[in-house]
Amino acid sequence: MRTKYRVGILGATGAVGQKFVEILDGHPWFEITALAASERSAGKRYKDATNWIGSTPIPASVADQVVVHGTPGIDCDFVFSGLPGGIAGEVERSFAEAGYPVISNARNYRMVDNVPLLIPEVNPDHIALIDTQTFSDDGFIVTNPNCSTVGLVCALKPLMDAFGVEIVQVTTLQALSGAGYPGVSSLDILGNVVPFIGGEEDKLVNEPKKLLGTLGNAGIDMADITVSPQCNRVPVLDGHMLCISAKLRTSATPEEVRAAFLGFKSPIADLDLPTEPEQLLQVFDAPHQPQPRRHAAHGRGMTVSIGRIRDCEVLDVKFVALVHNTVRGAAGGAVLNAELLVKKGYLKPRHAAVTA
Amino acid sequence: MRTKYRVGILGATGAVGQKFVEILDGHPWFEITALAASERSAGKRYKDATNWIGSTPIPASVADQVVVHGTPGIDCDFVFSGLPGGIAGEVERSFAEAGYPVISNARNYRMVDNVPLLIPEVNPDHIALIDTQTFSDDGFIVTNPNCSTVGLVCALKPLMDAFGVEIVQVTTLQALSGAGYPGVSSLDILGNVVPFIGGEEDKLVNEPKKLLGTLGNAGIDMADITVSPQCNRVPVLDGHMLCISAKLRTSATPEEVRAAFLGFKSPIADLDLPTEPEQLLQVFDAPHQPQPRRHAAHGRGMTVSIGRIRDCEVLDVKFVALVHNTVRGAAGGAVLNAELLVKKGYLKPRHAAVTA
Amino acid sequence: MRTKYRVGILGATGAVGQKFVEILDGHPWFEITALAASERSAGKRYKDATNWIGSTPIPASVADQVVVHGTPGIDCDFVFSGLPGGIAGEVERSFAEAGYPVISNARNYRMVDNVPLLIPEVNPDHIALIDTQTFSDDGFIVTNPNCSTVGLVCALKPLMDAFGVEIVQVTTLQALSGAGYPGVSSLDILGNVVPFIGGEEDKLVNEPKKLLGTLGNAGIDMADITVSPQCNRVPVLDGHMLCISAKLRTSATPEEVRAAFLGFKSPIADLDLPTEPEQLLQVFDAPHQPQPRRHAAHGRGMTVSIGRIRDCEVLDVKFVALVHNTVRGAAGGAVLNAELLVKKGYLKPRHAAVTA
Amino acid sequence: MRTKYRVGILGATGAVGQKFVEILDGHPWFEITALAASERSAGKRYKDATNWIGSTPIPASVADQVVVHGTPGIDCDFVFSGLPGGIAGEVERSFAEAGYPVISNARNYRMVDNVPLLIPEVNPDHIALIDTQTFSDDGFIVTNPNCSTVGLVCALKPLMDAFGVEIVQVTTLQALSGAGYPGVSSLDILGNVVPFIGGEEDKLVNEPKKLLGTLGNAGIDMADITVSPQCNRVPVLDGHMLCISAKLRTSATPEEVRAAFLGFKSPIADLDLPTEPEQLLQVFDAPHQPQPRRHAAHGRGMTVSIGRIRDCEVLDVKFVALVHNTVRGAAGGAVLNAELLVKKGYLKPRHAAVTA
Repeated sequence: MRTKYRVGILGATGAVGQKFVEILDGHPWFEITALAASERSAGKRYKDATNWIGSTPIPASVADQVVVHGTPGIDCDFVFSGLPGGIAGEVERSFAEAGYPVISNARNYRMVDNVPLLIPEVNPDHIALIDTQTFSDDGFIVTNPNCSTVGLVCALKPLMDAFGVEIVQVTTLQALSGAGYPGVSSLDILGNVVPFIGGEEDKLVNEPKKLLGTLGNAGIDMADITVSPQCNRVPVLDGHMLCISAKLRTSATPEEVRAAFLGFKSPIADLDLPTEPEQLLQVFDAPHQPQPRRHAAHGRGMTVSIGRIRDCEVLDVKFVALVHNTVRGAAGGAVLNAELLVKKGYLKPRHAAVTA
Repeated sequence: MRTKYRVGILGATGAVGQKFVEILDGHPWFEITALAASERSAGKRYKDATNWIGSTPIPASVADQVVVHGTPGIDCDFVFSGLPGGIAGEVERSFAEAGYPVISNARNYRMVDNVPLLIPEVNPDHIALIDTQTFSDDGFIVTNPNCSTVGLVCALKPLMDAFGVEIVQVTTLQALSGAGYPGVSSLDILGNVVPFIGGEEDKLVNEPKKLLGTLGNAGIDMADITVSPQCNRVPVLDGHMLCISAKLRTSATPEEVRAAFLGFKSPIADLDLPTEPEQLLQVFDAPHQPQPRRHAAHGRGMTVSIGRIRDCEVLDVKFVALVHNTVRGAAGGAVLNAELLVKKGYLKPRHAAVTA
Repeated sequence: MRTKYRVGILGATGAVGQKFVEILDGHPWFEITALAASERSAGKRYKDATNWIGSTPIPASVADQVVVHGTPGIDCDFVFSGLPGGIAGEVERSFAEAGYPVISNARNYRMVDNVPLLIPEVNPDHIALIDTQTFSDDGFIVTNPNCSTVGLVCALKPLMDAFGVEIVQVTTLQALSGAGYPGVSSLDILGNVVPFIGGEEDKLVNEPKKLLGTLGNAGIDMADITVSPQCNRVPVLDGHMLCISAKLRTSATPEEVRAAFLGFKSPIADLDLPTEPEQLLQVFDAPHQPQPRRHAAHGRGMTVSIGRIRDCEVLDVKFVALVHNTVRGAAGGAVLNAELLVKKGYLKPRHAAVTA
Repeated sequence: MRTKYRVGILGATGAVGQKFVEILDGHPWFEITALAASERSAGKRYKDATNWIGSTPIPASVADQVVVHGTPGIDCDFVFSGLPGGIAGEVERSFAEAGYPVISNARNYRMVDNVPLLIPEVNPDHIALIDTQTFSDDGFIVTNPNCSTVGLVCALKPLMDAFGVEIVQVTTLQALSGAGYPGVSSLDILGNVVPFIGGEEDKLVNEPKKLLGTLGNAGIDMADITVSPQCNRVPVLDGHMLCISAKLRTSATPEEVRAAFLGFKSPIADLDLPTEPEQLLQVFDAPHQPQPRRHAAHGRGMTVSIGRIRDCEVLDVKFVALVHNTVRGAAGGAVLNAELLVKKGYLKPRHAAVTA
């Protein structure tokens, strides 16, 4: 591949923005040319504007870049959006209208009819919805799911294909990084559990219907799947754990379910996307695994781990799934979306022709 | 009440034994006359034999008592057993055969036909099973449920009475103290979740059937209730949180379910048992409550807290329940059992005739 | 004592304010008549205006009281101030000028010449500084020390009396509650240590000089003691641990130092103040004690725990001290100050004559 | 370099042993040919014999290797010892006597006169002590320091060289992994601090004298440095934090001390040892840094991080130092020692002549 795509990051100094910076460090296709944030940060060097919360150093390639104000006009071929929901709606639309492809992690456009809600291994064909968008000639919006949804849907996809899934009960144990920074007060969560995450359960009810839906002429035909979620915050840094019970349309033994997980073939495996993990799904047989602190980062945070597959006394099968919420569930998922868009021809050097 | 009952504690130096000591401090009816432990501890003063893990000082009344070896012959009217399951079976039987009433927190005899598995507010009539025991003239065994079971069953009881309960999905987030001491390694659980607790799910499947069953001429007629549990260990000190979905036999709205919780009348309220809490159940309406660290100790650890009552997309109703696992779920539950036995005439000064 | 003093709490909805409410519940001398907070909270019931973070329920006596705006004119004989330093300076002065005694936990007036910085067991005579204040006829300000300082000074006082103390090296491991609410982000501190607390080290350098100083005709003669502090935040809820090395003016063995701690006589013991603990200092001999989670609440949070007394390779003696930072180090210390002021005749029913 | 050295690991299934396995994965010079453990594990595949506690998968190259009993005769050129102190003394000697070079992390031989206690960047010349050992023709023992000592000494070395260091006060906040597995009970440390670590303070007093000592004809001339340590366990996974105050022989400003840290030249930089970090020391200027969770793994865990350099009110200078206790402080330090030994000619293919 010739020169790299020039990438902007909206909300670059926030928690999700920092994760984009971390993941894009050394990316073979993308290079960060615009670190965009609020006016307060604009003009400062990234390392001075940012309270870097990662455990690896700020990549040298961006540490001294000057932060710009996040408005259309910034120098890049497309943008990743790590903006909070409160402002993402307006800002992302303004970028799309100004001709920028927007690869968003925000919640705002996920359930909008002509916006793809995308997991490349699950519903890559949904990107065709882009063709129906009318923001501008070149601008469009693509989204990735909520951080707990993505773990659920990656786990359900092989079961959907093999047996059909009708009903899901899911209780989540979600990590602190899902709440952003500063996010959850330490006084609220040290040695504690909070049995509520605002807005989370609605996303787990609705997003799977779209993600597992079928693309037709009239848009997405929602999947007929009923999800009943209960969401908890737990004192874990990274990695959402999901305790799942599922009713299948064709019944299956735990062994058959296990085989379905292991036999899942990624529909994009032949595209050689740099961020796609070797395995979408990893199955643990030891009963006390997977665990968020130990296994969430497997597959560089892009693999979803499955464990404890067994009969359910009420539905058909029970198991746990673990997803790295800030990688697969946020920045990493968005980067993989962008890579798919490259391969499918939706991203092109935007101002390159102009400036070259 | 005249002189206090003379109480022995089996496993007095362990985690559960320490909780017995803490709860019995200043008890109006019971005084500890025998702190029993292994031969290794026998002969030492309690404060020297015990690695006291509580956050209040060792009660002065027992600190200097000499620990005795836990075999029949120890000086007391009845014993509380905080023994681990590995040895409780044999030791408890030997005490019952030697004529001691055994109020046990261990798992061994819970599901035995003629042994009461007892929560005084739920199934007080089950103590009549004692009359069918044949260990000895005066000796018998009474048990309290597993620490997560008790939270589930206290929450289900009012629903059982009001609507009937057919099916339950429950995911637990369980505290570290449930594993005893030293129990869970800090390297395994700090900032982590372990999605497995050995033997726990079986208990949640089976014990509710007995607890909610009906005493008939042929013993307990098991309740027709199907429970599907998923158990997790979380980095919380005390307080098991349960995320529950239930299918009722007569459907009910969340408001009706809430009213059933609030309207529950304890069948033993008129007995004035010292350890019975003012309320068996406490209902929180704020969505982020209850929380283990903040609410598990309400009602001196004997109250079960309920929250987030709402419709379930799959079954009828969802809610969370919180139980203090080492108080209501262990030592406190056993002490309440003993108090009920006193009032019902099953405990009497054992060697009093001899010594008087 | 006849009717109780009518007490106002400034900053009643904040973390320190909540601790005042908790500690004053059932107080034999004081009753809360004014819960004061910002205009935003004024007019709401306390239970609605407050995100209650305690692990005991909101006291029934205040739950439904209506919060008032914290300006002079509120109905009370004196005020406790739990205000943050950013606004305490101005508000506390306005109350003192309006004739209210102000018992403050804030940092602002601690080092002001004619304001007592008070630990009743350490420097009760310093309250005479009140006589030199000129805010108004009846109004004055009294302060308690910073939460880590109070632990250090309570531990040093017996050594100062017995041997003199010249030099102190102290490294602190401080709890999260010292930072207020929401305070420290969970992402910053879970499984982590932050080796810095803004402004804390200066307080540990300076406040001991005043607390251990001598009241003379010209005010406080500062103690000649050099303190070198290093302050760390650790993932502990309550209880600041201090690792102390001290150079004494007269050398002493660890045994003599231990005896000095145990032999300390409180100069106010005969006043029977309700909040004074039985022991100011408690000495642990087991090497792994005291520990914040297990021992900070001993003596209802008013006792300072000492342990690991031993020779120092560099100075004379080393030991650790543990103080409950929100009780002895904040609200409890202020309440004890108020009790001393009552006994010494500095507090009187303020508007009683007017309203009676 | 031609074929790799064949390496044995004693205690391969334990916590330190696992870290050796992790660090040696893909090592350019060393390959593991013998995973040695107790008889109980011998004969099992490594992945079955080991409760793997790391957050990266077991390296594929060793997962299926069969564990051998750890006695002389195992197939390797030299051994790393991750044995616990209780058995390391005897086992390591038996290997040295059988002709194996032993690169040990255990405490047993550290202070023995003719055994090098080695940090390659600090005292590489001490390896000459090997020549005075008499275990056997080819066998010898080399040790690395205690995990907190190595952080202290790496930080002191530049100051020793530039100004001389006479006195050190150090308070440690030590991670859980330093206690091995299962190590510290979660009930003891969650939300808590334990102000004692058995044997740790003695090591901090004594080991620096040898590490900073001078090699002479009669062995090591101990450095004249007095260390007063206070050691605490904190709920952190990896990374020991040290709060250090030092008295220099030639006084220096914080700026000069900072310059000494930054100007330190590793005496082995030209050897290109694979495990030597780019920088032995990294200096942070932000006051709230370094932090164990965020910075301990910098330099792949081999860099020591310094921060908060400032004047001390009592001695000359204060600062904090952070060291990754299981990498630089254990397995990584031992591997670096082995690399130095290779370059200096002390390691050679042991049975190569036999097998070739």
